[in-house]
Amino acid sequence: MVGFDPDSAVFRVHEGGKLVLRSKLPLVDRESLSLAYTPGVAEVCSAIAEDESLARTYTWRSRLVAVVSDGTAVLGLGNIGPAAALPVMEGKAALFSEFAGLNCVPIVLATTDPDEIVETVVRIAPSFGGINLEDISAPRCFEIEARLRDRLDIPVFHDDQHGTAIVVLAAMRNAAKVTGRELSDLRVVVSGAGAAGVACTKILLAAGIGDIAVADSRGILHAGRGGLTAVKDELARTTNRTGLTGSIHDALDGADVFLGVSAGAIGEVSVARMSPNSIIFALANPTPEVEPEMAHRHASVVATGRSDYPNQINNVLAFPGVFAGAFDAGAHTITENMKLAAATALSDVVADELAPDRIVPTPFDSRVAPAVAAAVAEQARADGVAREPVAR
Amino acid sequence: MVGFDPDSAVFRVHEGGKLVLRSKLPLVDRESLSLAYTPGVAEVCSAIAEDESLARTYTWRSRLVAVVSDGTAVLGLGNIGPAAALPVMEGKAALFSEFAGLNCVPIVLATTDPDEIVETVVRIAPSFGGINLEDISAPRCFEIEARLRDRLDIPVFHDDQHGTAIVVLAAMRNAAKVTGRELSDLRVVVSGAGAAGVACTKILLAAGIGDIAVADSRGILHAGRGGLTAVKDELARTTNRTGLTGSIHDALDGADVFLGVSAGAIGEVSVARMSPNSIIFALANPTPEVEPEMAHRHASVVATGRSDYPNQINNVLAFPGVFAGAFDAGAHTITENMKLAAATALSDVVADELAPDRIVPTPFDSRVAPAVAAAVAEQARADGVAREPVAR
Repeated sequence: MVGFDPDSAVFRVHEGGKLVLRSKLPLVDRESLSLAYTPGVAEVCSAIAEDESLARTYTWRSRLVAVVSDGTAVLGLGNIGPAAALPVMEGKAALFSEFAGLNCVPIVLATTDPDEIVETVVRIAPSFGGINLEDISAPRCFEIEARLRDRLDIPVFHDDQHGTAIVVLAAMRNAAKVTGRELSDLRVVVSGAGAAGVACTKILLAAGIGDIAVADSRGILHAGRGGLTAVKDELARTTNRTGLTGSIHDALDGADVFLGVSAGAIGEVSVARMSPNSIIFALANPTPEVEPEMAHRHASVVATGRSDYPNQINNVLAFPGVFAGAFDAGAHTITENMKLAAATALSDVVADELAPDRIVPTPFDSRVAPAVAAAVAEQARADGVAREPVAR
Repeated sequence: MVGFDPDSAVFRVHEGGKLVLRSKLPLVDRESLSLAYTPGVAEVCSAIAEDESLARTYTWRSRLVAVVSDGTAVLGLGNIGPAAALPVMEGKAALFSEFAGLNCVPIVLATTDPDEIVETVVRIAPSFGGINLEDISAPRCFEIEARLRDRLDIPVFHDDQHGTAIVVLAAMRNAAKVTGRELSDLRVVVSGAGAAGVACTKILLAAGIGDIAVADSRGILHAGRGGLTAVKDELARTTNRTGLTGSIHDALDGADVFLGVSAGAIGEVSVARMSPNSIIFALANPTPEVEPEMAHRHASVVATGRSDYPNQINNVLAFPGVFAGAFDAGAHTITENMKLAAATALSDVVADELAPDRIVPTPFDSRVAPAVAAAVAEQARADGVAREPVAR
């Protein structure tokens, strides 16, 4: 089997799985058992039965995320099913714990039907404080997230969309600043109209970037292009205000920003025709759409998804703080404003050390999650979606 | 609100919930992140996609139990719903961890419909290594368990039935021994035909006790009684071989054993009419069906569900070891033989210290879970339901 070496460091780290769940109180004698279990627990159950809001204080669910996946769009591996997706979801749960001190349980599903996914998540939702959707293929992911947001009164967040979008916006703000431009003056070309491309485009529009063209594998989205999905049709109508047609290479002519969130390679000829001082975010993993050394020959700022180059655009900069902030405020949803606030807070973390190779913090910068969480919680209160604070 | 005192020890122990989930590997630098998350994790995903049996070794699910409840029969509190049931399920998860080192996640459901419960559990099942059903009301619990056992290839165990039954059988074996009788010679009266009553009766029949009468709130189950549920009708046909009719008090006349698994109180007149050297298991909590001091005036062995009397019949003596043993053997189901083996192993733990007030170990006896697990795993192999061992 390709890549299966049980003695390798990767497989040894995964032996027995990556997560461990424990009791906060050691149950070592009759007294501890009678407090945490019967008969004492009955008092807590009765209190919650009378006033369900007490579950926020007296159960673990108010700081518990479910990472939910059907295994249809896992990393670059595609539709590999729930069992094979589980190691990624365990890793995600580990990141929630390590970066924000949250509890997180992976839930992988034996169905790919959107109706069944929605019903299943709704039925298990009383167990959790928030739902992080993960690695669900487009366009199903859009409908599933929208329906769950509608049905549930807890935060629902598709990380492949919004986690990426928040970090991209934070990086874009700082890239504009470091190249002496206003966000609103940028002309942006987005390569990819999947989960990440759609969400990035929407958040950049919301942040005031008016001139965005989006291209999928068949070329630039425009109002006259037929056969588009509902989501792409909406994008075609809300972007491309200059009416561009043709391939992504046509769109790049004179563009300020290339944002790659698919794997389509871009050659040096196209990159060279972008505007002076251009900005290149080539986020495909493991192979960026624009080769980084080549990108540096033409652009002022280059970012990738890789940890071995500077300016790593990684969702871990967003999701731990977003959920921690939502939980801190007892938010029953995550608003667009909360995502924008997360991006602003994230970019501000490196405000004093800003440089072309330092437009985002590194994933291990311990300032990030608290800063993002504080901004998200504050915005939740401002947006009127917060509840009373919960005991920590 | 009755019983809600936020400063009491019970509520303070429950603040923020009782469970904590952590990463086994600290994710503190690029190297650890690249092993546990991207890019390393992709190798593990690919290997499992090619051979799903590798998920047993390289994910946490092979030693992970889901405690699933719809909150319809919680403790003595009845149908209090999923949020109010959650503290009990967290406590149960804590017990799995503390007593057998297993991971366990509470899943409480926003539905009480058996079809929806079955479909939901089937769809989330790829996330888990076993399903422990908990506090689901009878008779729905019987159907739900049977259908899930049929649909899933992982252990499914309704603890209110089988956990209780295993511990009752273990205690009964030792009670017979300590009073100088054979199990097969006992005449037993069971009070209660709910989840526990049905499962206890079945395991006692399987263990060779031929003469059992079961009574519900309307009296003794017998073949001529109309209006019975399917489950009670089956009990009526497989028990009561002497054709008793009337009330439980009629059945107790000359009986060797009273087994109470409901809350119906039994007065001294009835207890006094049992056989000499009688055995009384009065398991209702917090008020035993037979008042313990009164029981001792007439019986040779008395057991309750309470921690403040000797001979505490508590499910925690069974479920941690049962799941640990099933996982050790990679069992895809829990057979009747595995439950019988668990009971035998549990009774054998106190073989050398047997006494009328020592027919079961205490809940904190550290010999219990390993002994039960070893017996269950051995029986799984003997029954042909084991798979290759999994890395610990």
